[in-house]
Order: sequence, then structure tokens, then C-alpha cells
Amino acid sequence: MIAILKRNVTDEQTKSLTDWLKAMDLDVHISKGQEMTVLGLIGDTSRVDMDLLRSLDMVESVKRVSEPYKQANRKFHPQDTIVEAGGIRIGGGYFAMIAGPCSVESEEQIISVARSVQESGATILRGGAFKPRTSPYSFQGLRDDGIRLLLEAKKATGMPIVTEIMNISTLDLFEDVDIIQVGARNMQNFDLLRELGKTCKPILLKRGLANTIEELLMSAEYIMSEGNTNVILCERGIRTFEQATRNTLDLSAVPVLHERTHLPVVVDPSHATGQARLVAPMAAAAAACGADGIMIEVHNDPAHALCDGAQSLTPEEFSAVADQVRKIREAIQ
Amino acid sequence: MIAILKRNVTDEQTKSLTDWLKAMDLDVHISKGQEMTVLGLIGDTSRVDMDLLRSLDMVESVKRVSEPYKQANRKFHPQDTIVEAGGIRIGGGYFAMIAGPCSVESEEQIISVARSVQESGATILRGGAFKPRTSPYSFQGLRDDGIRLLLEAKKATGMPIVTEIMNISTLDLFEDVDIIQVGARNMQNFDLLRELGKTCKPILLKRGLANTIEELLMSAEYIMSEGNTNVILCERGIRTFEQATRNTLDLSAVPVLHERTHLPVVVDPSHATGQARLVAPMAAAAAACGADGIMIEVHNDPAHALCDGAQSLTPEEFSAVADQVRKIREAIQ
Amino acid sequence: MIAILKRNVTDEQTKSLTDWLKAMDLDVHISKGQEMTVLGLIGDTSRVDMDLLRSLDMVESVKRVSEPYKQANRKFHPQDTIVEAGGIRIGGGYFAMIAGPCSVESEEQIISVARSVQESGATILRGGAFKPRTSPYSFQGLRDDGIRLLLEAKKATGMPIVTEIMNISTLDLFEDVDIIQVGARNMQNFDLLRELGKTCKPILLKRGLANTIEELLMSAEYIMSEGNTNVILCERGIRTFEQATRNTLDLSAVPVLHERTHLPVVVDPSHATGQARLVAPMAAAAAACGADGIMIEVHNDPAHALCDGAQSLTPEEFSAVADQVRKIREAIQ
Amino acid sequence: MIAILKRNVTDEQTKSLTDWLKAMDLDVHISKGQEMTVLGLIGDTSRVDMDLLRSLDMVESVKRVSEPYKQANRKFHPQDTIVEAGGIRIGGGYFAMIAGPCSVESEEQIISVARSVQESGATILRGGAFKPRTSPYSFQGLRDDGIRLLLEAKKATGMPIVTEIMNISTLDLFEDVDIIQVGARNMQNFDLLRELGKTCKPILLKRGLANTIEELLMSAEYIMSEGNTNVILCERGIRTFEQATRNTLDLSAVPVLHERTHLPVVVDPSHATGQARLVAPMAAAAAACGADGIMIEVHNDPAHALCDGAQSLTPEEFSAVADQVRKIREAIQ
Repeated sequence: MIAILKRNVTDEQTKSLTDWLKAMDLDVHISKGQEMTVLGLIGDTSRVDMDLLRSLDMVESVKRVSEPYKQANRKFHPQDTIVEAGGIRIGGGYFAMIAGPCSVESEEQIISVARSVQESGATILRGGAFKPRTSPYSFQGLRDDGIRLLLEAKKATGMPIVTEIMNISTLDLFEDVDIIQVGARNMQNFDLLRELGKTCKPILLKRGLANTIEELLMSAEYIMSEGNTNVILCERGIRTFEQATRNTLDLSAVPVLHERTHLPVVVDPSHATGQARLVAPMAAAAAACGADGIMIEVHNDPAHALCDGAQSLTPEEFSAVADQVRKIREAIQ
Repeated sequence: MIAILKRNVTDEQTKSLTDWLKAMDLDVHISKGQEMTVLGLIGDTSRVDMDLLRSLDMVESVKRVSEPYKQANRKFHPQDTIVEAGGIRIGGGYFAMIAGPCSVESEEQIISVARSVQESGATILRGGAFKPRTSPYSFQGLRDDGIRLLLEAKKATGMPIVTEIMNISTLDLFEDVDIIQVGARNMQNFDLLRELGKTCKPILLKRGLANTIEELLMSAEYIMSEGNTNVILCERGIRTFEQATRNTLDLSAVPVLHERTHLPVVVDPSHATGQARLVAPMAAAAAACGADGIMIEVHNDPAHALCDGAQSLTPEEFSAVADQVRKIREAIQ
Repeated sequence: MIAILKRNVTDEQTKSLTDWLKAMDLDVHISKGQEMTVLGLIGDTSRVDMDLLRSLDMVESVKRVSEPYKQANRKFHPQDTIVEAGGIRIGGGYFAMIAGPCSVESEEQIISVARSVQESGATILRGGAFKPRTSPYSFQGLRDDGIRLLLEAKKATGMPIVTEIMNISTLDLFEDVDIIQVGARNMQNFDLLRELGKTCKPILLKRGLANTIEELLMSAEYIMSEGNTNVILCERGIRTFEQATRNTLDLSAVPVLHERTHLPVVVDPSHATGQARLVAPMAAAAAACGADGIMIEVHNDPAHALCDGAQSLTPEEFSAVADQVRKIREAIQ
Repeated sequence: MIAILKRNVTDEQTKSLTDWLKAMDLDVHISKGQEMTVLGLIGDTSRVDMDLLRSLDMVESVKRVSEPYKQANRKFHPQDTIVEAGGIRIGGGYFAMIAGPCSVESEEQIISVARSVQESGATILRGGAFKPRTSPYSFQGLRDDGIRLLLEAKKATGMPIVTEIMNISTLDLFEDVDIIQVGARNMQNFDLLRELGKTCKPILLKRGLANTIEELLMSAEYIMSEGNTNVILCERGIRTFEQATRNTLDLSAVPVLHERTHLPVVVDPSHATGQARLVAPMAAAAAACGADGIMIEVHNDPAHALCDGAQSLTPEEFSAVADQVRKIREAIQ
């Protein structure tokens, strides 16, 4: 970490600051120029409160040289992490095709969708049991029953399943779930992350709508710092001024994350765009820029034919998307 | 709610849609023009999934006419809600002056700051015991001990206290806390909101960094829908492209919220700006545009004189801010 | 256009409003329900000031049913527009590979880069002569000389050229330029757009950093409304809170634009990301989601070997990108 | 300027970089630590292209120590600039009350509004003659006639006038205009700024919707670098995800600008919020946080009584706002 001091700082002030920094077990390297004094802080600077340091009257600015995440950092772990879940691998060249309905509705629905997407090449089944909803009056998911039905679908098809946890008190229900999802709204629910870090379950961590790439990595670090290194990151759109899509899918995050971390990165074009007809092109783009997987909403319920235009694809549409993604992955080999 | 259908929609499709809507206990009023057909949905539309409706192939667009929040809505509750906490009133003309340190550090610190801010006119003491931190390696607060020390300060000064909850499992510790704060990162932790709705504690609900005003009201609705109507809203800055301040304080949210809801609205200029020297002007602006209170970080620790420039004010600076806020409130009467 | 009136609006007010609307040559279709009155405005609503209408006390909300752009609208022009420039076609299946240096520096440089990128498959040469720079003290381009050198490169290679105009007073200099670029900062310089609309030159219109997709189309409409329909749209990143990339490349804009307009859409990953090593994956993603072209910075100046890491690619790197883009385009056929 | 080099940089590379920097007339101060090498660049670093430097493979990061604006910088000009226009002073304790209609419509209208707002304490008359409109089909202002009518109103009332220029080719028309406004969409129309810098007219420079505070100051620098130091800055809202207001008024920009520059700062709450009923609270807030003036839309046209709810205030409403602003300014003395 580098701290640049203001011009008019006295020697006494500089000493007082360096003493304070040394008390945090840091080595301080002082470089005094004509125009400015630069302090180089060496040691474990992840404990230094940058905001506090920056706010000191004598400090002009502060800059990290090393990243505040350690376990998630590719510098200290150059090889790609491959996460295994229910016999399926993700990352390091293994591509995950995750598909399934937004919400689990019934045994018939989930098993039927599972079979359809499996035939089209999906390797992991997604489905919401606990649903975070903006309105307290909206359907909140089948909850315990939803998880039970997902496990039925897993038994019927052999596909590993991924579903979202909203509250650590329900962790017991996830015993046979293969991948636990942390939703965008809980990306900085630090207590939840920490508890999940104490399990050895693969965790699919979605980026928050207003969270930076660095914050996503810091949230992964929360999980990893407790011992669980099976973390899969998920880009699912950020909130911007543009209203033509529900969120703005930040695909540049894929190569940026691949530079900074060894963890696998998947992309969810369904939630990002909110529109079924944008899912295919954005899934293709995700594959083209190197994502380790895609996560797509698929439903298959003739009784709700009305929903045909939703952000969910039909199994047939998913099949076409899966084909195209495969072709693109071959093209970029 | 209004749904505008596309031009080429057939009568059969229209019937299929209206049947589906009627099955949700809605009256559907059809207005068929030459250029378009408009459906007016009458009844409890708060259960209608707008995204789903909008996504239907036959639907051009959907528009809410009534807001999706009921209990928080000023239309159904025209009078200002006045929240009472530890003998102090907030809202409806009662202005809350909330002050205290970012983190509780020691008994001496918290009692000393409490006394100082009380002398300068603070009516409620704030202080962090559980601290949500981006990094797992940063200081996470004194936790249980922090709450204990806050209660000591309450005993010593008689001031009601407000402090943040991060996890519903710690609710018991908040028994004697006067106002429970829900932080920006937990604004959409719906399970936490729901549980707090089952208590009768005043809840200070901070706006999330990427959350709209409507989403803030929907989160208040989560609390209120469980029976707890003692909700105080807090504007604390949103995330934008501007980097000169930590966040962008959205003061227009104050009059907008006052139009839409009867709940009191306080402003936290310390977290929004992240810079002590911006706190005074923004506290003044908050008072001028009608906020029902301000929440300011104040510390008083000679041992950490280094921190003098942080986002915290000294008690002397807070005293000046409090004076100016009082003058402005008189000016706008 | 739909205007929803407030509940308590009187018949007299409604009449006064409809009279005002009719005076604008609109047919007004009134649908009076129990809960609300809906006005359907039929005719040329592109002249109605929505903000004004929305702001009327009696109006609850206003919604466009038809888009405010006509000439750029795919509804009225279902077939893809193919823009021709210097013998090269863009759009409707024709893919443009645009490459060249950020700034024209010398005859040797521009001709050398032109030859290199041409060999690697570039079909159009880009190069900045007039450079919009945030600082008045930065290099502002070679200006007239820059255009002259570009024309030399055109002569030497036969490639059509694209370069940016900043000021309509310099239009004469662009006589032999094949495509005139309007930069992001000038996307809403309406006088400039209008003047360019009076020429018959192909215009490459870049999306502004804070402009919506609809605003981009409205700016295209400015050009087209004067008679020039040779408009190529360019997505080059929008401004968001994320700081890991210079801007956030909004690739969803590509399929969204293809739905709404018949104009070709190219993507500039160099300016969007600001980092050379992100250009290859984002160019691949742009091709995968259906872009009609990519625009990439390439330089080839051994004297400035220092710049090797900039947002510009070397000719060798560009060659690899061009190869991958071709393979992806074959994969998505 | 500070450049931090990567760990593995060789001495040869360092020398090559420092030679390049020295060739730009900079002194380079090298501080070589165990963990990193820091280069301090001393001299006129405003010409150094930070993006380029940052992009070099050997460079970890780059940080400005001094700001890139010189003439607008308070460090080199500690005293407040007071701009004089038509006998009215702005800045340094002088507060400007700018009011008038969005568009000039007729002689009767503009003179009538001018008289009304003058009676209520407005000191400067605003009115749009050239109107930047998103749609080519919207009313674009009375143009030359609009300026002529404004000059009539000036003659009738003695008030100085401010109106927007969109195109440098119309500069002659502004000869008797007291303050020339540069709109948000033209904030980075650098050619326009430069030409205005060659005049000695006071320039009211509005912040662009997606522009940072630093970019606003750089645009002021464009004007000032040509010799015209009569620049008034105007905060008028930035574009964010929040849709409840047209833009998000960034009032923190007022104290931030006052720290960084000596130029006066006014606030336009009418355009920022887009809603008349938010103008009064936000004007009050602007005054409370230290703005040097406010700019408010007022109309007075009984024939268009329909517009009563628009972002424009009636003269009576403006009078109340002006009163409250005066009281607040007294309160914060």
C-alpha cells in the first residue's frame, strides 16, 4: 500500500503516522521527495482501513498495490480452480450448462423440465425453492417442499442441483443439494457467507446489482477464509441507467475475473436481461468471452402457455442455445 | 394496473389473457381502440407479477396505476407517522438528532462521546456493535460486548440507542436497544425484515446502494406487513459513476418519500459522503429539504488523534452542525 | 400514447385536456373506468412533449405505445439496412472489420498500420485526426494533416477510411473520407447531427456514455430526418459504477438494437474496456451476439514500444482477434 | 504524478521508462523499495497521458498528486472568483437568483414572466431560444427570434439575461446576451468551449449527465485556457438508476466544487428533478449547502393553464421559494 502525504506535512506528523502504522506490524518505507513524501507500507495491509488512512488530514491519497483478497487471488494460486459438484466439474476448461425453471412449482413440472434440459445437454439442474421477492405479497416459493421436489428430480435424472439459500437457519434442508446459490441481494450478507464457508458445499455466488468486481471477490474471500474454497462466481447483470434491459449484463467482468482469480465464472443471461429473446445472443456472447458456464431459465408447462414470452426459454429454445454455445466453444479453442 | 396489448392480438388471445387475470380475482376492464387494446386491472394487483405480464408476447407494456406498497403508502394513511423510541419522537414535525461513533470501542469512549453529543443537542445515540465489513479480515465490531457498552451509555445518559443488526439469530441481544438499524447491504434481506416485522421495535431501514425509492418502500412494507409499523427510512447515498464522494447522497429522495409515504425519513450524510468536511453542508441541506432527522458520526478519542480527518466529526464540529441545523429548521417553518 | 388520469379528475378537467390534445391534431379515445380514466392518443404523437403531459396535475402517468423514432424504426422498415462505404458493405449479413490507430501520427505509421491490418482481414481503416480530449493541454490530433495522411493510406491500400468529426465547420475536409464518425461526446450535438443528415456520407454514430438505447436511436433519427439514411450505430461502453474497466460494454444493446432498428450495429471493445487484453474476448463476444462489425485500435510503431500494453493491439494480436471473430461468425450461422 | 512499477520490472525497463518521461521535460524521482519501485514525476504532468502510462506492462498503477486543471484550481487561486454580468455579481458571497421560462414563446410571455420574477427577487432572467431536444420532431425554440425577445425583456426590466448556445456559428446573436449558457449535452463539445474561451462573456457551464466533477472542471479549464475566466459552474443532476426523479441532483458536488475551485457554483433544481413540487425543497437544500445561486423555471401564461404541474413554477410559487432561500441564507451566515 502506498500513502502519499501532503506537501506541508511536518516531520513530526510523518513520524506520528509511521509509528501508528508500525504498531499494526507494517514496515514503512519513507521516500521523501521535493514535492511530496511517499510511504510504502509493507506487510499484511489487508487489515489497514484505507478509508481511515485516506481521511487523515496529512494524507493526499492512498493506493493499494496488492489486492485485499488473498485466497481468491490468482497471484497466489495461478492454476484454475475446478469445482466438483455431484460428479460434474466446473472451471479449468470444464463448462457448466445449468438450466431449469425460475421456481419449482410441482413434481411433474420439475421432473419434466429436468428431463428436457438434460436431453439438450444441460449438466446441472437449477430451480428456485426459496424466492427473494421485492414484494411481501408475491409468491415466495415452495420453500421446504421446493427442495424436496428438486431432490426428486435429481433422483429421477441423476443431475446435480443448484438452488438458492436465503437464510442460514435453513441450511439443514440443503444437505443433499449439490450447489448452494447465494443470490445477488445476499452477496454482502456477510454472516451468511461466513457460515457457508464452514461447509464444504460448492457455493454459486451471484454478483450484487451494485457491486464491483472487487467486492464480489471480497465476498468470495469471506467464504474461502472459513475454509470452503469451492466457490463459483456468477455475473448476472448490474444496475445502470439503461432501462431497455432489466439489468446491464457486464460481460467484461468475465475476462477481468479470469485475470484476478482462479475461481470459475458463470453467466446468467436470463436474470440479467429479463427477456427470453435476449437470452440466446447473450449466452453465445458469454461463451465467446470465456465463461465457464451459463445458467438459463427454462420452463415447460403447457398449463401456463401464457408465459411463453417470459425470460424463460422453452426446452426447444434452450436446445438451440445449447447447440450454439457448443459451437462457439469449439470455435474459440 | 394497465396492460396495453399489441396491435395484432386476436380476440381469442385477449380472452385467454383476461381469463387468466380474472382467475387472480381481478376485474378486467377492456378498452378496445383502433390502434390498441387497453386492459384495466382492478382489484388487488399487488400480487400480479408485472415482469411476467410484460413478458407475454401479446403485451406491449404494463403500467402500475396504484403503488405496490399499501401500509407504507401515504394514500391510505395521509397523516405523518410519528415513531417513538425511548421517549423520543421522530416524524410529523419531530426532528431526530442521531449521533455517535462508527464503532463502539470501549466503555470510556462510548460514554464520553454520548455525553458530548448529548450536550450539543443529540437526542439519540448511535454506535456500531456488529459491523458489516467488505473484507473478512477487517475489524467486525465488538459484537455482544458492543451492545452491552451501548446499554451502559444509555444508562449513563438516558439517551435511547440505535445500533445495527446483521443476523436475526442475534435478536435477543437487542432487547433493550431502542431502535434496530437494518444496514444498506441488508435492505433486501427479506427474511430479516420479516422477522423484525414480528417485533414491535422501531426499525431504522437504510436504503441500499443500488435500490430505488420504490424498493425501499417495498422493504418497509415487508416489515409493516408483519405488524410492525414503527419504521424510519434512511437515505444514505446511492452508487453512481461519481467518485469524488463515497456515494451520491440523493436528497431528492426526501421530498419524494414524503409524498409517497407517511413514514419518517432521516439522512445520514457521514456514510454518504465519506468525508468529514462534507458532513456539515449536507446535514444543512438535509434539514432544508425537510428531513425528519440526521444521523452523524462523531468520535471523541484523544488516543486516535490521527483520525481527525475521517468521516467522523469531533464533538465540537458536531455541535456547530447541530446549531446550523436548528437555525435552518427555524428558517423553513 | 396512453395517458392515465388521476382518480379525482373532473369531467371539466378531462374535457380541457382532450381539447388541448385535439388541438395538436390528435384523436383522443377516452376510456372511463371506475378506478381511472385512460386517454388513448392516436395520430402523430412524436410531437407531444411527454414530460409536460406527465407533469400535469390531473395526469397519473403517460406511456408511449409507439416509439418516437420513425425512420430508424424496424417496424416501418423491416429489412436490414446495408450501408455501403468505399465499396464495403456493413449490415444485413455483411460484417465490418474496422481497425487502425487511435491517432494518426505520421505517414509512415498510418500506412504501415493500414497494410498490417489489411493483411489480417481488416476491411476499413480507422484513425483519429481530430481528437476530443478531456484536457485542453493534451494532444488534440494532427487535425487537417491527419486527414491528409489518412487519405494517403487510403490511396496506398485501397481501404475506405473512417475518422471523427468534432465540428461542422471542418466538414469540407471530410470530402474524401468514406465514413464520418460522430463521437460519444457529440451524440447529442443536435446541430452537428442535422448538418450531417444533409450530406449523403455514411455516418458512424457512437453511443454516448450516459445515453440510453432509445436516445441513440433518436440521434440517428436526427440524421435520417434530414435525408441521410446511411447510419451505422456503435456501442462503445456506458458509464457505470464499475471501475475495473474504463466503461461497461453493454453488449445486450446489440440484440436490442437489432430488434428496434434496421440500421447496422458495430461494437468498439477498445474504447469500452480501455485495456488491450480485454479486447480479444469482448470482440469475440460482440461477434457472438450478432454485431455487424467490430472496431479495434491497432498500432505498429516500434519507436513507441513502451505503449505495448495500451488499449491498442499489435498487428499480430489483431490478426488473432480477426481469426477468432471469423470462426465465431461461422459458428453462429 | 506517481507511477508504481510492478515487482518484476528490470533495471533496464525502468531506465527506458524514465528516459521516456524525462523526454517530456519531467524530473523523475525513483524510490526503489523491496516490494515495489515508485516513480515520482515532477514538472508539468498535465501533458502526461495517464491512460497510456497506466497501460504499460511494467506499470502497476498511476496516481495524480496534482489535479489536471490549473486555472480552475483553488490551490493556485485561493480567493473566490466573483463573476459580473450586467451589473450583477455571482460568487464570493453574492447569490444569483436566476428565473424564467423554459422556452421563450412570445414577447408578452417573456416580459410578463420577467416582471413577475423580478418582483419576487430574481436578479437574472433565463429563457431558452435555442432548445436542445432529444427528438428532431420536437419544438426547437424560437432561435434568433427568441434571443431578440429576451433582449426586449432585458430592455423592459433591466435584468441581465442568460440563454443557451448550441452552435458556435450563432455566436454573433449573443452579443448583447449577458451570460451564455453551455448545456449539459455540450459540456464536452470542446471546440465550442474553446471558442467561448476567446470571448470575454460570462459562461454558465452545466454539468453533463454522465460527467464527473473533475470532468466539469476540465471543461471549465478549456474555456479558461483561452483567456476567459468568467465561468459559472452549474449542477443540474446526473443520470443514475433511480427513476423517481428525472435525474439525481448531486448536491454534494456543491461543497466538493467549492473546495477544488474558486469558480461560483449554481444549482438548477428544475431540470434535475423534472417536477415542480420538488423544486422548492431542492432549492432550499442547494442554498443550505452553500450554492452561489439557483436557477429556476417559472412561467406565467394563463393560456396554457394546463401546464400548471410541469417542472415550471408559477410566479407565486417562485416568490415563496425565493423567500425561503433568503431565510436559509441568513440562517447559514
